[in-house]
Amino acid sequence: MSKMDEVDLVQANILASGCNKKSVRIVNGFGKMMGSKDMVNVDFEKDSNMDYLLRRDQEEKEKYAKNKHISEQPWTLNNWHKHLNWLNMILVVFLPSIGWYFALSGRAPLTWRTFWFSVLYYAVGGASITAGYHRLWSHRSYTARWPLRLFYAFFGAASVEGSIKWWGHSHRIHHRFTDTVRDPYDARRGLWFSHMGWMLLKPNPKYRARADIEDLADDWIVRFQHRHYILIMLLSAFILPTLVCGYFFNDYLGGFIYGGLIRVFCIQQATFCINSLAHYLGDQPFDDRRTPRDNWITALVTFGEGYHNFHHEFPTDYRNAIKWYQYDPTKIIIYMSSLCGLAYDLKKFSHNAIQQALVQQQQKKLDRQRAKLNWGPQLTDLPVWDKQDFLKEMEKRKGLVVISGIVHDVSGYISEHPGGETLLQAALGKDATKAFNGGVYRHSNAAHNVLATMRVAVVKEGEDAAIKFAARRGEIYAKTAKAE
Amino acid sequence: MSKMDEVDLVQANILASGCNKKSVRIVNGFGKMMGSKDMVNVDFEKDSNMDYLLRRDQEEKEKYAKNKHISEQPWTLNNWHKHLNWLNMILVVFLPSIGWYFALSGRAPLTWRTFWFSVLYYAVGGASITAGYHRLWSHRSYTARWPLRLFYAFFGAASVEGSIKWWGHSHRIHHRFTDTVRDPYDARRGLWFSHMGWMLLKPNPKYRARADIEDLADDWIVRFQHRHYILIMLLSAFILPTLVCGYFFNDYLGGFIYGGLIRVFCIQQATFCINSLAHYLGDQPFDDRRTPRDNWITALVTFGEGYHNFHHEFPTDYRNAIKWYQYDPTKIIIYMSSLCGLAYDLKKFSHNAIQQALVQQQQKKLDRQRAKLNWGPQLTDLPVWDKQDFLKEMEKRKGLVVISGIVHDVSGYISEHPGGETLLQAALGKDATKAFNGGVYRHSNAAHNVLATMRVAVVKEGEDAAIKFAARRGEIYAKTAKAE
Ligand code: HEM
Ligand code: HEM
Ligand SMILES: [Fe+2]
Ligand SMILES: [Fe+2]
Ligand SMILES: [Fe+2]
Ligand SMILES: [Fe+2]
Repeated sequence: MSKMDEVDLVQANILASGCNKKSVRIVNGFGKMMGSKDMVNVDFEKDSNMDYLLRRDQEEKEKYAKNKHISEQPWTLNNWHKHLNWLNMILVVFLPSIGWYFALSGRAPLTWRTFWFSVLYYAVGGASITAGYHRLWSHRSYTARWPLRLFYAFFGAASVEGSIKWWGHSHRIHHRFTDTVRDPYDARRGLWFSHMGWMLLKPNPKYRARADIEDLADDWIVRFQHRHYILIMLLSAFILPTLVCGYFFNDYLGGFIYGGLIRVFCIQQATFCINSLAHYLGDQPFDDRRTPRDNWITALVTFGEGYHNFHHEFPTDYRNAIKWYQYDPTKIIIYMSSLCGLAYDLKKFSHNAIQQALVQQQQKKLDRQRAKLNWGPQLTDLPVWDKQDFLKEMEKRKGLVVISGIVHDVSGYISEHPGGETLLQAALGKDATKAFNGGVYRHSNAAHNVLATMRVAVVKEGEDAAIKFAARRGEIYAKTAKAE
Repeated sequence: MSKMDEVDLVQANILASGCNKKSVRIVNGFGKMMGSKDMVNVDFEKDSNMDYLLRRDQEEKEKYAKNKHISEQPWTLNNWHKHLNWLNMILVVFLPSIGWYFALSGRAPLTWRTFWFSVLYYAVGGASITAGYHRLWSHRSYTARWPLRLFYAFFGAASVEGSIKWWGHSHRIHHRFTDTVRDPYDARRGLWFSHMGWMLLKPNPKYRARADIEDLADDWIVRFQHRHYILIMLLSAFILPTLVCGYFFNDYLGGFIYGGLIRVFCIQQATFCINSLAHYLGDQPFDDRRTPRDNWITALVTFGEGYHNFHHEFPTDYRNAIKWYQYDPTKIIIYMSSLCGLAYDLKKFSHNAIQQALVQQQQKKLDRQRAKLNWGPQLTDLPVWDKQDFLKEMEKRKGLVVISGIVHDVSGYISEHPGGETLLQAALGKDATKAFNGGVYRHSNAAHNVLATMRVAVVKEGEDAAIKFAARRGEIYAKTAKAE
């Protein structure tokens, strides 16, 4: 038969990475945390041009074939600073350090009002990341009207995690390439790497990956936020909290330190936990083929994003937690927004698909437990005896009993039998099928299991009975046509 | 082939009921709660004589064939008193009523000291039932030296639940015939019947059952307690608590009412719960073929006997609970006794057998859940298409995609695809095996499940690939030799 035409993989990968689009893409953003000048000034022509991109990939490849890229070189006293991404070092290490220095040295006393404002602002910025950056833009799990999008774009920037465009791009790559070398936060490289290492170190261009973000580029709010990211970020992350705390509580310094630096540190670390802890710690109720895990601790600090095993399995579901007792306020925010018309088209995976995953994962766990136990020999591994074989064998060992077409050697069990020695003794050398199966006593499932460990042979012509008997405890044998 | 000799069922049943033994048996005890004169004065000759027993069974049968036994007659104003077992009515209804009358009417004020003595004595009497009557004598789950047996025999009588011999006999019958008409406390007849009905009503002699209790009859302590049961019971259940509370706290009446009547009522009701509630309420982690259930509430009032699902599955295990957080003080008492040499030969079912039961029961539950879900059609139920069939069908519906030897109709899913419309559109009419399985994106298990619901056909010569693909999500197909 002539074969079916196959999907053109090169073409499909170009589609999947969005390289066919005439929209502005982020190519240099990988490994950088947020908009640098480089990033904002994208070359519209070149960066949307597949030929250019492929050519450049090729050039890079040749370049690093000769002299290794810094990420492949060992750390030395001379090159350590080249390993680091200094922009990100400043944004996630140095800035927070200044904040902590002021806070811990007592130079900026924390007032209750500033504290509560910072907590509130933490929630506003955090929820803008989870409901906005993540579930809305990265996963399109629902559609939002512009006022809500504007809100998320402005206050999302307050968390200092980069522009929506950059964030969504690397996040889509993370989902598409989870647990591979192309995964920006590849959890297999350890807790530290997936937590912060990936953004503090220069990544290997060999593993550059792309994702289609045309829909993001189509959103004027995303475009605007990306283009003016640094300004918006400074405004919402630092200037606004400083001014609010200064104007209302006369605490400019506290507003900057706690409402700005420390708060940013906290929300950054909480978000990073999704890449690190949520791939290490917790349960895998839906699938354990990949690293993501469900964990209420990470959920607590990230407004529900900690149910990460569910999320990787059902990424376009607007929920991350489905049980009523699991903490997922982001899902509630989205649902509330839909009630007042700010959001619509909330996506869910079907109940059927979710239950299937649960059942299959439980099955896997059960199979693993089962494999550790002694279930006795399989029927198919037993020799077949006729009456003569049985009688001959009885001369050697006295403890043989036939039950449902299977010969068992119960020698070691006679004195242990819960139903007494006498009954078992009276069954030696005989067919005790009826007695065992209710004629005297209908044995428990446990008794069937104990019995199976004593199997020694199948009785000729007893195969059907044996298969039926074994099925009672879950053994399944395909009836194969015998070639006799 | 000539057949194997079968176990003689009549003979085996005679053995199982102990009717071959020359030991004194309880034949009339069934349905009576404790030693009446009738019961104590057993006819040694007759009651151990199988011919006599069978003859009497036969006579009874003929008798009740003509005029129905009272238990088969409807209740009327004229015959209601004949339905009842008045001895038991007195012991489990009237006596406690007297106690409650005194207690509630304030005629016997309860002092703290009498209260605590009664609680303690409740525990002593109760544990003698659970560790002695039940796990030692009824189930031989360990062996005890005479001082411990004497203790259990005396204080067990304080719970007013009949002699060891009578108790052990009906309990063994309960285990051997659980959930059948011969089960004295047949749970299928309802909560009330299994709680008290069975002992307050006259039982139908048609369902009389016997169990081997030769080992009990061989124990001089059991024999002695049985013969002098009424005396011992009065002493330990009523006279002793009255004297103790009278002598030490000067509270004779309180001792009789609370330490005697009310305490007896409480321990009786708690024990009855094992026959009623423990067969109705709770989980069935080990097997759900029969009614017994694990329930911490019943465990709490019966010193651990509430883990009744375990117990019916593993009756000769000296433990009823195996998890550290489950409440089973009786097991601890037995274990402690073994440490100080009063008990030995503690029996346990193997870890393997216990785990097997758990795994099998979980498997059953999982299979039930699985059966409720839509897994898509089985491969074996699909038509087989060659390329021509496929192309012809494509003219009618555009949404066909081949993945791993299976044709899917994805029409309804294109706009829903989490990976975008474009990619799916580019795969229509083609073989997307590689793209789906990692060439573009290695799809999640959830995606495999969604995909399976869209199956329409198997590709000719694609069967092997299809079977392998289906196996990834747990589907198993026996490879059958095709007759082509
Ligand atoms: C040959 C292998 C046998 C094994 C492994 C076995 C195992 C067991 C086990 C585990 C129990 C207690 C658990 C339960 O089922 O409730 C039991 C009880 C019993 N068995 Fe067996 N049995 C065997 C053969 C027989 C035979 C041939 C007879 C009768 C002729 C018999 C009669 C009984 C009776 C009467 C009980 C007591 C029921 C009770 O009081 O709970 N058994 N057996
Ligand atoms: C025909 C039936 C298909 C179904 C039912 C399906 C289903 C899904 C599902 C459920 C997801 C999200 C969940 C996950 O796997 O992580 C997904 C994502 C994806 N699918 Fe498909 N898919 C199909 C075909 C294809 C094809 C033919 C391609 C490529 C040519 C493709 C490419 C992708 C990509 C790139 C993603 C996005 C990965 C991400 O960002 O998480 N799919 N698909
Ligand atoms: Fe993740
Ligand atoms: Fe995500
Ligand atoms: Fe029971
Ligand atoms: Fe029992």
